Formats: sequence, C-alpha cells, structure tokens
Amino acid sequence: MEDKFAELEDRLAEITDLSQVSALLGWDQQTYMPPAGVEGRGNHMATIDRILHLKRTSDELGQLLADLAPLVNEWPPDSVKTRLVKVTKREFEKRTKVPVEWVEEFARLTTLAEQAWEKARAEDKFANFQPYLERIVDMKRSYAGFFAPYEHVYDPLLDDFEPGTKTMEVKAIFEALRPQQVALIREILACPPIDDSFLHQHFDEQKQWDFGVQVITKFGFPWDRGRQDKSPHPFTSSFGVNDVRITTRLYPDHMESALFGTMHEAGHGLYDLGIHPAFARSLLGDASSLAIHESQSRMWENLVGRSRPFWKHFYPKLQETFPAQLGNVSLESFYKAVNKVQPSLIRVEADEATYNLHIMLRLGLEISLLEGSLLVSDLPEAWNSGMEEYLGIRPHNDTLGVLQDIHWSVGLMGYFSTYALGNLISLQLWERIRQDIPDLDEQIEAGEFRPLLEWLHENIHQHGSMFEPQELIARVTGSRINPDPYVRYLTEKYREIYGI
Amino acid sequence: MEDKFAELEDRLAEITDLSQVSALLGWDQQTYMPPAGVEGRGNHMATIDRILHLKRTSDELGQLLADLAPLVNEWPPDSVKTRLVKVTKREFEKRTKVPVEWVEEFARLTTLAEQAWEKARAEDKFANFQPYLERIVDMKRSYAGFFAPYEHVYDPLLDDFEPGTKTMEVKAIFEALRPQQVALIREILACPPIDDSFLHQHFDEQKQWDFGVQVITKFGFPWDRGRQDKSPHPFTSSFGVNDVRITTRLYPDHMESALFGTMHEAGHGLYDLGIHPAFARSLLGDASSLAIHESQSRMWENLVGRSRPFWKHFYPKLQETFPAQLGNVSLESFYKAVNKVQPSLIRVEADEATYNLHIMLRLGLEISLLEGSLLVSDLPEAWNSGMEEYLGIRPHNDTLGVLQDIHWSVGLMGYFSTYALGNLISLQLWERIRQDIPDLDEQIEAGEFRPLLEWLHENIHQHGSMFEPQELIARVTGSRINPDPYVRYLTEKYREIYGI
Repeated sequence: MEDKFAELEDRLAEITDLSQVSALLGWDQQTYMPPAGVEGRGNHMATIDRILHLKRTSDELGQLLADLAPLVNEWPPDSVKTRLVKVTKREFEKRTKVPVEWVEEFARLTTLAEQAWEKARAEDKFANFQPYLERIVDMKRSYAGFFAPYEHVYDPLLDDFEPGTKTMEVKAIFEALRPQQVALIREILACPPIDDSFLHQHFDEQKQWDFGVQVITKFGFPWDRGRQDKSPHPFTSSFGVNDVRITTRLYPDHMESALFGTMHEAGHGLYDLGIHPAFARSLLGDASSLAIHESQSRMWENLVGRSRPFWKHFYPKLQETFPAQLGNVSLESFYKAVNKVQPSLIRVEADEATYNLHIMLRLGLEISLLEGSLLVSDLPEAWNSGMEEYLGIRPHNDTLGVLQDIHWSVGLMGYFSTYALGNLISLQLWERIRQDIPDLDEQIEAGEFRPLLEWLHENIHQHGSMFEPQELIARVTGSRINPDPYVRYLTEKYREIYGI
Repeated sequence: MEDKFAELEDRLAEITDLSQVSALLGWDQQTYMPPAGVEGRGNHMATIDRILHLKRTSDELGQLLADLAPLVNEWPPDSVKTRLVKVTKREFEKRTKVPVEWVEEFARLTTLAEQAWEKARAEDKFANFQPYLERIVDMKRSYAGFFAPYEHVYDPLLDDFEPGTKTMEVKAIFEALRPQQVALIREILACPPIDDSFLHQHFDEQKQWDFGVQVITKFGFPWDRGRQDKSPHPFTSSFGVNDVRITTRLYPDHMESALFGTMHEAGHGLYDLGIHPAFARSLLGDASSLAIHESQSRMWENLVGRSRPFWKHFYPKLQETFPAQLGNVSLESFYKAVNKVQPSLIRVEADEATYNLHIMLRLGLEISLLEGSLLVSDLPEAWNSGMEEYLGIRPHNDTLGVLQDIHWSVGLMGYFSTYALGNLISLQLWERIRQDIPDLDEQIEAGEFRPLLEWLHENIHQHGSMFEPQELIARVTGSRINPDPYVRYLTEKYREIYGI
C-alpha cells in the first residue's frame, strides 16, 4: 500500500508540473509574449490542458484512489496522507462527473462569448452579448446538474472556488452584512468629502515602481524566489513554492493603482510562497480557496497598507520620493485621501467601504439567473436598480454597468463572492493576530513585518489546501466565516476618519 | 489514406506544441526565472520532455509511418507531404534506435558532468573533469553504435545536427580551408596592429540597447512577432513562426558584444520568423540544420554588420549616440577596429579571420577521441599544441584552453563544426545573392535591407526543414558546401583592411 501511495504522489507530481507549466504559458502571455504569438499560445495551452485533463481523469488515478480508500480510515484524519487522498478524490470526482463534450462545448462558447463581450462593451450594446450569456447560464445550469442532488443549484458553482461552502451560508453572511455596510456608507456620505486631488498629479512611473518594491521588500517578499513584472491587469501566478510572480500596472496620474495593487498582489504572492515545501509537487500545494487567497491580498493591501501605522512609517519615504507632489501634504491628509469613500460604478476602482456591495449585487444576480428567477434580458435593469439600492448611484450605460467585468463572458460564475468573503476573513484573522501580536501597530509603524508574515505562514500559508476554507478559519479563529469583525473594523475606522 | 496523413499531422502538431513549450521553459529560465526556481523548473522540463519522448517514439506513430510508406513513392519527391513523412521517419528512427536506458543514464551523467566541468574550470583542474569526459566519450561511442553500420564513428553524432552530412566530407572541407586561412592570418599578423582602444571606453548600456534595436529594426525584425531580452549568454528561441525571441548581453566597456551579438541573434531570429506559416505546427517548421542557421546569424553579423557599406549608413548614427566616445573617430578607423584580427584563446571572442580555426581544432580532437586515437588524458596537451599550430598562441592554463566551452560537459559532440560550416555557407549564399541583387552594397549603404531579407525568406527560410542542408545549398547555389567563397572573401577583405 506504501507503493500505491507513492504511485499517487508520482502521478500528482506530474499533474502539478503540467499545471505549473500551464500557468507559465499564461504568465508569459500576459507579460512578454509578442502580440502575434497569441494563436500559437492558444495551441500550446490547449495541448497542455488536454494532456492535463487526461491525466487528472485517468482510470489509473481512479483505481489508485479506490485502492487507497480503505486505508484512509486508518490514518489520522488530519494527516497529510489522508488529506492528500481526500483532495485528490474530490478533484477527481468533480472532473470525471463533467462529460468531456460539455467541457469542449463550453470552451468553444466562452471563446466566442469573450469576443462578443469585448465588442459589446466597446459599443455599449448588451443585446449583442445577451445570447451568449443566456447560453452560458444554460450551460452552467447543466453543469450544476452533473452534481445533483444539491441543496441549491448555485452550490456546485460556488464549490469550484470555495470547497465545501454552501450558497445559503454565503447568502446569510451577506444578508447580515449588507444593511450594516449600507448604513455606514450613508453616514459617510452625509459628511464633507475628503480632498484627494493631490493623488492625481504626475508621478514618475519608475519612482512608483521603486517605491512599491521598497514596500513589499519590507513585507518580506523574497526576490530570489519571486519577481514582479508589468501587465495590463495585475495578477499573481505560482510555478511552485520557489517561483511566484506578481505583476502591477502603473498610471502616471493615478499612483494609488500601482501602490496598492503591488501590495495586494504581494499578499497573494506571500501566501503561495509560504506553502510548505513538502507540497511543492502535490495537490496540497494549492491555496485552500480563492476567499482565503483574497483574505491575504486584502490584508496586506488594506489592513496593513491603508492603515495609519503603515503610513507613519512609509509616508516620509514617499514624500522624499515625490517631494514636489507631496512635500506640503500632511500625513493626516494623505491617510484620509487613500481611504476616501466614494460610491462609484466600477468594482475594481471601489474603495474599502463600498467594495463588498459590488460583490453582493453580482452574487444576488448570479443566483437569480441560475435559479431562473431572473432572465438575462432583464439583467441590465436589475443591475442598475441594484446599484441604486446599494450604492445610491445608477450607471447611465451598460459599459459602466453590467458589461464591466470579464468574468461571465469567460464562464466564471460562482467566483465573485470570494472577493467579499476574503475581506471578511481578513478581519477575522486580523482580530486573532492582534491577540497573538499585541504590539502589531507598533511593529508596523516601525516597518517590522516579520512577526506578521511568520504568523500567516504558520497559521494559514503552510497548510496549502490541507483544510477546506471554513475548516481552516474555524481552526484559526474558532468560528466559521462571520461578518462581524469586518463591520466592527469598517465602522470604527471610517467613523474616526470622517469624524462621525 | 488522407485520414492517416491527417492523423500524422495532428500527432506532429501536438509534438510541436510540446517542444515549443519546452523551449519556453528554457527561455524563461535564462531570462526571468528567479534563481530559486531552478529545481522546480527541472521538474517541469523533465515532465514535458518525458511526455514528448513518449509521443515522439510511440508505437502509434511508428504504425502511421509504416502505413504511409507505400504512398510516399507515389507523391512527388519534393512535395510537402513526402518531405514531412521523410523527416518524421528520420526522427522517429533516430529516437527509437536509442534505448531509453541510455538516454536516462546519459542525462544523469551530463548533469553531474556539467557541475564537475564548472568546478574544474573555476579551479583550473582538468583532472577533476577528466573521468566525466571519459565516460561521455564512451557513451557517445555506444550511441554511434546504435546506428551501425556507419562510414565513420563520428557520422551519427554529426548527423544529429547536420542531417545527411558525413564526417569525411567535413574533414575534406576543413582540410582545404585550413592552410589558406592559416596563411592569411600569418600575413595579417606581419602587419602593424589596428588600434581599437576607443571601443573600450564607457558606453551607456541603455544607449547600446537602443542602437542595437534600431539596427535590427532596419533589418526587418518584426516586433509584433518577436522580442529581445537580456540573458547571461545570448541565444534565440522560437515558440512558433509568430513568436521568436532573441537575447543579448551588455558590457559597458565592450560595446561590440551587444552590437554584433544583437545582429547575430537577429539573423537566427529572422530565419525562424521566415519559415512558412503552414509549417507552424509541423516538423518541417524547424531549421534545415544548425549550420544553415549559423549561416544566417553570421551573414547578418559579419557580411552585413562588419561591412563598410553598413557602417557608411550606421556610423553617423552611432557617432550621434556616442559623441564623446566616437565623435573624433573616423569611419575608416572604426571600420578597421571592428574588423581587427588578433588570435586569441577564447573561441567566443574570436574575430572573423581566426574563428574557424578554433572550430577545426575542436572537430579534430572530437574525431580523434571518438576514434580512440586520442585519450582524454592527453586532451589538454593536444589542445594546447593545436592552438600553437593553428593560431600561434598557447593557453597557459586549461581554463583558457580545453575547459573553456560548456558543450562537451552537457554531452554535445558533433556540434562544433556547424559554427564553421555556417561561415562557409554564408559566403556561398552571399555570392549568389550578389548575382541576384547586383546593387546589394548600395542598398546596405542606404539602410535598405528588405530585398536581402526577402531573398533569404524566399530561398532559405520558408523551406524550414523540407531539405537537408547540403541539398538546400545545392538547390540555391549549385554546389555542396565549399570553402572557396569564404577564402576569397576573407582574403580580399582583410588584405584590403591591412593593406597587404
């Protein structure tokens, strides 16, 4: 039986290698590939992904899992071996339940849908994207059907990104959160707006880059095991525990983009870099879930990077970097500016206080679409009404509304909620960290991030996907995902900033 | 049978994809991969190469080739179908004749040998590398044995890089060339040396980079289908006809390195970029041979880039770029400096007139080692005597002698001669080009390279590996590889420069 387990490890090592190779093809496409390379790259990816799919769903792997099943009960439930078999079985079953014909048809559909979405967005014509989205919703419903019976038709979709998490639980979390977050935003909007005009001067791009590098170097980003490049959309990609790459984008007149984007991606990167080296070629070497991943990026971006102690340390350095632009701006003015709350139409530009509402809108719409209680043809109106209800603003066209995000066009449904869940988790962890590191603020103010990073490595990162997300959070904080710490944080922080 | 041929094409498309993916893994390792990624990258490469090997040697591929064999005689001998089957059969037979045990043992040996070579070179201790090289020579002899009967034990090694070319023919070519090239060098060395001290001032690296980009843009390097990056050793890598990447390295006090290196790699790149798009996912999408590839790089580097017409066009621009360094240096002085002849110990630093002698030395030694007429233990002395005989200088240690090149340590034998053959071929083509483009010099002086590039695309590049190298050269020039044009070129050029 040791042989069987060793064979499982060998097969998973090969699968992990191929999946990291696939990630490198994607990274290169987003960073350095010359534009005309796109067709060839499509072939490279299709070939690797086809081989990967065959290996992930092979009869031999299924037989190995069957052979190992009786043993799993004899091993300790938290042991690496038990967990590895469990995670492998879960993935194997998910992949083998979906007919290859569905996978191929969905790939063809979303290739066309993405093109249609790009065009529809550019021309502000939702009607041209509508038939594709209708087909995607239909196919997503069929997809859920492969996993029947389920509690809710949305569960199988959510489960792809948040293993073990149920739709009803997420809905309940968001229903508890929403009224409190809406009420807070109303309070804030009744106050005089914060002046952040000085953030929109000209900031030299190389100096922005260098400052971001300085910050994440202090965070502990290990440059011998990672790197940063430029790309149109920032992302993080891991090719194993010793090769993790982040990207950023620079706008000369919008310095927050690179500044907080770099910290955000570094948060993702530090997670991937903290996974136990023993999982380097194992399915346990992935993150627990997207929400856990997002909790790390949002923690470094917001709880660290938008905090007063952080700027007490870094603002003098930023002023030295940009004396003409910031020499006469006080720390307090700067701190408020980078925390300015202003409801806006575009999710990716949303501030900390309004961001979750964008997510809740999308989650509600996705669920309704899957349930069939909302028709795709009624989606733009539902979007616009939702924006008005949640944020008090209404898009005057669909490009700024329902067409803004790429996700649906590429077939991603069940994904959005992980962004907001990540915010909530980040605060649950943060409250726990404050107990374990009582002088956290003083450390941050001193530019000392090692104890924080070590805490995250120890409690979150190293485990990879040993534990499902809810289980991991419960192990660390004593409770499942819970919005209360986040509400407490937002309320306290923003009342102080706005003098409410 | 059309189905069989279509199946062959599908299998080769997959093989081509995987081999391009493998090339990307290598490119990334040399350019951007963080240092600690090396172990993971080794796994990625091993996994891809193992899958590739299985697909290249599969029974199904062998059966397809057997099924198609009778048809090949019915198709026109120069047709794409005939040639594709022929090239595939050749590769299949070469790969299946070598036992997988040999391949694995050789991979293990050369991994250790490369480490031993690096250490031996750093410590100038050939004796520590000797046992590895002895084992490599033994294994290379076994390798040749898999292809017995052969005319010469070196033939199977040479054939890996120069399909269809025989050892005796290469020896004869070099034996005709050597005395003439040695005599010319003696004439040159009797002349007063050329002053090139102004090439070794400080040249800003970014300006060097920009000038190189300006030059190869004029050559016709298409930036939408290629790119240039930095790497410790310059190389060219192709991921398909629309994604070809070159690299360069910059030394502030040695501007020729990047200048001519960039032109050299662009020459390789323009070849790969000129292959017929229909061969994008076919075994015919490779180059005909390494020597043909080298003929292209050396043509752009030397016949174009070290010519007087070229510098008549570009020297004023170079002076504008570096006015402090070159403002007072005449075109004639600069032209002579970049063509200075000086026998030196290191092959990669050799000038145009002495380069081939370095190659001839290595080829002779390789053949003797394989034949068994030279023992590895006698190699350093044989090297040093050969240097004295060919170039009149003697290395005072093995780091500057027999240990200088990485090739043997990684198992490359049969490779070196392609560098010199490339030089010879470049001149055979050049004489033909001068007939077809009578005003070639005037065009180059005017910075007009399109007719030259189009000629190369038409006559060489587009064919990929449709034709074996000797066949291709004969088709274009009417004769097989022949040293006379090269000797004529060297003699005329250098007698003029040195006033002989």
